[in-house]
Amino acid sequence: MEDIKDILPTIRMLQGAVELIDQTLLPGEYRVLRIETVDLLCEAIAKLRIRGAPALGVAGAYGLLLAVEEAWPQENGYYFDMEGVTVEKFPDVDVTAVREVLDAAGKQIVSTRPTAVNLSWAVGRMKDVYAQDFPGTNKMLERLHKEAIAIYEEDVEMCMAIGRHGAELLKDGDNVMTHCNTGGLATSGFGTALGVVFAAVGAGKKIHVYADETRPLLQGARLNAWECEQRGIPVSVLCDGAVASIMSRGMVSCVIVGADRIASNGDTANKIGTLNLAIVARHYGVPFYIAAPSSTIDRSIPDGDAIPIEERAEEEVKQFKGVTTVPTGARAVNPAFDVTTRDLIAGFITEEGVVQPPFLPE
Amino acid sequence: MEDIKDILPTIRMLQGAVELIDQTLLPGEYRVLRIETVDLLCEAIAKLRIRGAPALGVAGAYGLLLAVEEAWPQENGYYFDMEGVTVEKFPDVDVTAVREVLDAAGKQIVSTRPTAVNLSWAVGRMKDVYAQDFPGTNKMLERLHKEAIAIYEEDVEMCMAIGRHGAELLKDGDNVMTHCNTGGLATSGFGTALGVVFAAVGAGKKIHVYADETRPLLQGARLNAWECEQRGIPVSVLCDGAVASIMSRGMVSCVIVGADRIASNGDTANKIGTLNLAIVARHYGVPFYIAAPSSTIDRSIPDGDAIPIEERAEEEVKQFKGVTTVPTGARAVNPAFDVTTRDLIAGFITEEGVVQPPFLPE
Repeated sequence: MEDIKDILPTIRMLQGAVELIDQTLLPGEYRVLRIETVDLLCEAIAKLRIRGAPALGVAGAYGLLLAVEEAWPQENGYYFDMEGVTVEKFPDVDVTAVREVLDAAGKQIVSTRPTAVNLSWAVGRMKDVYAQDFPGTNKMLERLHKEAIAIYEEDVEMCMAIGRHGAELLKDGDNVMTHCNTGGLATSGFGTALGVVFAAVGAGKKIHVYADETRPLLQGARLNAWECEQRGIPVSVLCDGAVASIMSRGMVSCVIVGADRIASNGDTANKIGTLNLAIVARHYGVPFYIAAPSSTIDRSIPDGDAIPIEERAEEEVKQFKGVTTVPTGARAVNPAFDVTTRDLIAGFITEEGVVQPPFLPE
Repeated sequence: MEDIKDILPTIRMLQGAVELIDQTLLPGEYRVLRIETVDLLCEAIAKLRIRGAPALGVAGAYGLLLAVEEAWPQENGYYFDMEGVTVEKFPDVDVTAVREVLDAAGKQIVSTRPTAVNLSWAVGRMKDVYAQDFPGTNKMLERLHKEAIAIYEEDVEMCMAIGRHGAELLKDGDNVMTHCNTGGLATSGFGTALGVVFAAVGAGKKIHVYADETRPLLQGARLNAWECEQRGIPVSVLCDGAVASIMSRGMVSCVIVGADRIASNGDTANKIGTLNLAIVARHYGVPFYIAAPSSTIDRSIPDGDAIPIEERAEEEVKQFKGVTTVPTGARAVNPAFDVTTRDLIAGFITEEGVVQPPFLPE
């Protein structure tokens, strides 16, 4: 089993800035972006340079640290880094002023992607910290840094626990179908649904992955396939339309996908195409699992009808890397997520084990 | 209702050559190719410059005329044109020699696409003609020309009859979901599944089309949407993965798709993604129809298991217009068709009306 120290973080707080892999360029180009403003972080989130519900949670937490760096910049220095915090040179500012900056940044960050609960969850968790009484700003900033790092570390540990629990469901020789990207790139560093595959392979099982390409942005083809390739796991990419063809031939042992938000009754919002996959899996009796940290469960909403679905720009469907694929007179519909109803889901692989709804308020 | 004379042919026999629209360039560019050899015609079929089961039938018939033009070229002249045939200058060749050329060309043409029955159907129909006894080559060539033109004209007339029968299933205000390209470009000039929409609109009904983009080659996004745009019919393109999302919201009245081959029991091979669509439509109680000329029915096979499925090159999935979307170490699976089982199909819209299997030997 891998250790948390072996995991290369997808997103890092490094010398006062946020560093992340620009996932829109993979697999053609591996480029790390160094981001120094909240505006640019929000741009990166909106353009899906960083995506995946758990990774967005960490981005939200680091984003608040970034807001502080941006509002009170230090010449030739910084306050926050993954390795530690140095707030000795922080100016003499009232705690309330810092809270105002954090509130504004939090609002801006949360509004970039309305469906993923992890953004507001992480920003909310940071707010629960900075809303407390502090003897001075320095103490508050130290606690905020600790909280952001905890969100990161807990995420990696949760992913590895999800992997361990999920791996028990897989047999040697299984063919696992995945959708979108659910590996290390979607999280802080290990993955959810694809992390289950990594853990099974780590435990000595041979697994072959069928990666749905996941139009319109091809996160399955580009990112899940890339992560499998990096780890030497055999992977075959298929068009989203080929799912039923492959399943009808008995070539799929099970489907494991991630989640962007899970309602109390188990209805699950995830990348567009997930619902198709779940319905087809049910038709052929193929088990369909959700793998997600329990932070993805939104116990405040009864069912999927309460989950807002982001409608993204038509251009994502009408163009591909600058090539127009749809005539100008035609429209496009581009829901970014769909909601898979609870009855289609065999189980929820979380860091606490494989669980079943209802998920009642704690 | 439109008349056959108003229809712009998708593929034409023009002054001894085959002319067709290069459909791989649409919607960006409208280019007509003039093809003078069987090899180039086969290349055009294999590369999907011309595609769609009924159009392929006509291509097969014209291909045999082209083989004659190529084997016995006439300086500054030709034998075959859509408007007529002139074989006075045809050399003094034995009927058997012409048959040998036709046999070889027929085999080459049929082998370009193994799934579509219309290619072998049309070539077979031409062979039934040239296998007969003739007093001389000229008579045989005249009969072959007549047969090829008949295959074209019957196809357009069949499409218009399919449209009339199918249009009765549609109500004013309906939202029709389509897959791949099934309009005039897929046939000799009017269309099958999309022809039903054209006929309904021609009869005064308002119809909105949801066109599945149909990866990997995007015939839905590029061609069905283009044909709707040309006729002023409102159309929205969606990714194949968004089908369930749109249907779950009650936004689809019915699904109408074409067919590449229909078995006696009603199992239907059609463009990859059709089976997904049929399973999801069944899940939401949305009627799912096949629209195809009865020549698409292969009464010689009992069910879909007997239909060979073409597996196309991995590169169609791994690249898009030269941009690599899949890492080099990953494989891709690319079945060009799937087989929708008979139980998922509400009815078969043919030129004879809406019919139900079994389709027994005539």
